[in-house]
Amino acid sequence: MSVKIGLVGTGTVGGGCIDIIQKHKDDFKRHYGIDIELVRVCSLDPAEAEAHGVGHLFTPDFHEITTDPEIDLVIELIGGTGVARTIVTEAIKNGKNVVTANKALMATAGEEIFDLADEAGVEIAFEASVGGGIPIIDPLKHSLISNEISSVLGIVNGTTNYMLTRMAEDGMSYDDVLAEAQAKGFAEADPTADVDGFDAAAKIAILASIAFNSRVVMSDVHNEGIRSIQPIDLATARSMGYAVKLLAIGHRLPEGIDVRVHPTMIPLSHQLAHVNGVDNAIYVTGDAVGETMFFGAGAGSGPAASAVMGDVLEVSRHIMLGVPPIVGCTCTDKLPIVSMDNLETRYYMRFVVPDRTGVLAKSAEVFARNDVSLRSVVQEGTASRDAVNLIFVTHTACEKNIRAALAELSAMDDMLLAEPTVIRVED
Amino acid sequence: MSVKIGLVGTGTVGGGCIDIIQKHKDDFKRHYGIDIELVRVCSLDPAEAEAHGVGHLFTPDFHEITTDPEIDLVIELIGGTGVARTIVTEAIKNGKNVVTANKALMATAGEEIFDLADEAGVEIAFEASVGGGIPIIDPLKHSLISNEISSVLGIVNGTTNYMLTRMAEDGMSYDDVLAEAQAKGFAEADPTADVDGFDAAAKIAILASIAFNSRVVMSDVHNEGIRSIQPIDLATARSMGYAVKLLAIGHRLPEGIDVRVHPTMIPLSHQLAHVNGVDNAIYVTGDAVGETMFFGAGAGSGPAASAVMGDVLEVSRHIMLGVPPIVGCTCTDKLPIVSMDNLETRYYMRFVVPDRTGVLAKSAEVFARNDVSLRSVVQEGTASRDAVNLIFVTHTACEKNIRAALAELSAMDDMLLAEPTVIRVED
Repeated sequence: MSVKIGLVGTGTVGGGCIDIIQKHKDDFKRHYGIDIELVRVCSLDPAEAEAHGVGHLFTPDFHEITTDPEIDLVIELIGGTGVARTIVTEAIKNGKNVVTANKALMATAGEEIFDLADEAGVEIAFEASVGGGIPIIDPLKHSLISNEISSVLGIVNGTTNYMLTRMAEDGMSYDDVLAEAQAKGFAEADPTADVDGFDAAAKIAILASIAFNSRVVMSDVHNEGIRSIQPIDLATARSMGYAVKLLAIGHRLPEGIDVRVHPTMIPLSHQLAHVNGVDNAIYVTGDAVGETMFFGAGAGSGPAASAVMGDVLEVSRHIMLGVPPIVGCTCTDKLPIVSMDNLETRYYMRFVVPDRTGVLAKSAEVFARNDVSLRSVVQEGTASRDAVNLIFVTHTACEKNIRAALAELSAMDDMLLAEPTVIRVED
Repeated sequence: MSVKIGLVGTGTVGGGCIDIIQKHKDDFKRHYGIDIELVRVCSLDPAEAEAHGVGHLFTPDFHEITTDPEIDLVIELIGGTGVARTIVTEAIKNGKNVVTANKALMATAGEEIFDLADEAGVEIAFEASVGGGIPIIDPLKHSLISNEISSVLGIVNGTTNYMLTRMAEDGMSYDDVLAEAQAKGFAEADPTADVDGFDAAAKIAILASIAFNSRVVMSDVHNEGIRSIQPIDLATARSMGYAVKLLAIGHRLPEGIDVRVHPTMIPLSHQLAHVNGVDNAIYVTGDAVGETMFFGAGAGSGPAASAVMGDVLEVSRHIMLGVPPIVGCTCTDKLPIVSMDNLETRYYMRFVVPDRTGVLAKSAEVFARNDVSLRSVVQEGTASRDAVNLIFVTHTACEKNIRAALAELSAMDDMLLAEPTVIRVED
């Protein structure tokens, strides 16, 4: 008996999955006794299926997969929370196990999907939703469960990490590096999901849910992106001994879960500071294991397909052995999400201000009045003749005081000429 | 129903396991529905059991654990291939699942143990045998199985990595740093297993067996240690853009498995070059996933106990669900082990030679005659007035030619005043 698989989505990742099945089907049987068979593929474009040699399995109608009684396992790789949600829920309701790479879906409708899977007695697996090919969800759900995890944080968006790396190493401007990333296919035409931190927010919601045994959804995550970062910020950070990364951060605090995505300064001595380009890495700290890191390619056909197919093979193992789902939803606690307001950390801030006497003094006064103690203020030139960069580094300060100061400065006439750049320090 | 556990070995790692059970037993039940109960502990020293609050469970006789019909799972943490082997095989024959951290046992008698477990229908798990708390065996047996793995390599011995790090960063001599590591508890009184590469050899045998689906035993591994490394080697390597690490290396080649442990120069730009102190990291390359790395603490009570208890919880899950072992032995192929003789790489070699005209010319002549092309030769002072260091870096050369040249030089009177230092380059 072989496990019958239906695949929805034949793009980059789906194509990679088909290739793996064709290349290694016999190996899976010989090494692990896992016998899988791709019996139907669905997408909007039959040419994609044909290009991977499975044109004969093509259907344009996903219902032919979700309702086919022969199919044991459905792979959903179209992404998003619209049709994908219908496909996943319909497949589960029809008793099919589901493997998906859909971070947005799992980070918004995870609870509903787990409930449905539980009711139907099927498995839902989603390793590829975070960190491309890096095994991270599986270790968190298996190898590391003897720990109380205190933090899970990492670089989980390859697009922005590529951009920050190029800015740091080659001094390219934000606009130039975005254009290059788009040309290379590392960034979408509309880069919002990546550069504004939404993609990373979905991923840290998933990781935090598993690590802390408590449901975290995407809207719980405070996210800030990298649009206001420029090479000067990376160069200044480096001179202070830091790298700047778009970090997705989840901390378990006594009062609840602190979960956020924002540009972050991390010491150059930290492993994460050396994760460059489109690579991803997730850093997990547990009470027994201490600090561990999982590193690899965060995206791309092969890596994502590796994760999807790892899940497919694992679920297929269970189907062949006739065993029930081994692990379902593990969000058994209901921890509150803590507000950013009380965060205490150090801040790097860069303002573009008019080149005029008194601006530095006035901003310093605003910080002082809001109880923000400054460690250093440096004035640097800008591209424009009438403006300068004012770079502040604070001592440990409270987020709500920083925000109050920023609001006050933003409201002043003729003060901030651009959106301020705010980078928090994680030591 | 709870899963009844017997623990043999209450030292550093065993004590850590007891602590985890006591601290998180209720969490395991609430989060995962896994109900475990420690019902007996055995060691040579009842005081250890008492120190961890389980004196009432103590027995000095391991048979009371391996033959107790009530016990479902035995944890073996005494190490070695003597009594430990009896404990593991006896437990399995009595139908008990086994979790062990025993690298020497798994790297020498793995096949027999798997066969016994298969026959008895029980599970054998050994995540803690490699890389301390780092999840690596589990990802290789699950998440990454859709890949053909082309290489698995890493820093798997914390003692030698600590010593090399101190030599590189603080210029300490081999003898001084060994004494320090012994004082800090990072090295044994008899450091042979660590500094001569036997510990790393056992670990790479285990990793290579899983990664390449073919049995590799400890005696298949060519191993060289770090006894001849001195700060001058690390400083010279750094000036060439390399870090020196005791690397455990497994490559899948068209002709078979290349598996070895030796001091290795790796580019400073590589992630592994930044793994310092007692940390471990394993680098895995697969045809779909590309390059991934798993990093963390390679030893210590908490990390090792995290890995042991991760296995215990996973096996307990299966016991509670009444499911058979999910994965057994995966060494289904019989790939040959390739000889080192045909290895082609670049070599760094340092000889301590008499401070005398003609020595450099004579050694260069020996290399030339053996078809070893030199990239550079540098003469540096030594601590002794009558001797100098001769440092050779070769172009790509063949291992057997290098060995022939070294044998020739060693046989010469009044030439090599100490064991030559040989470091291979892995780019």
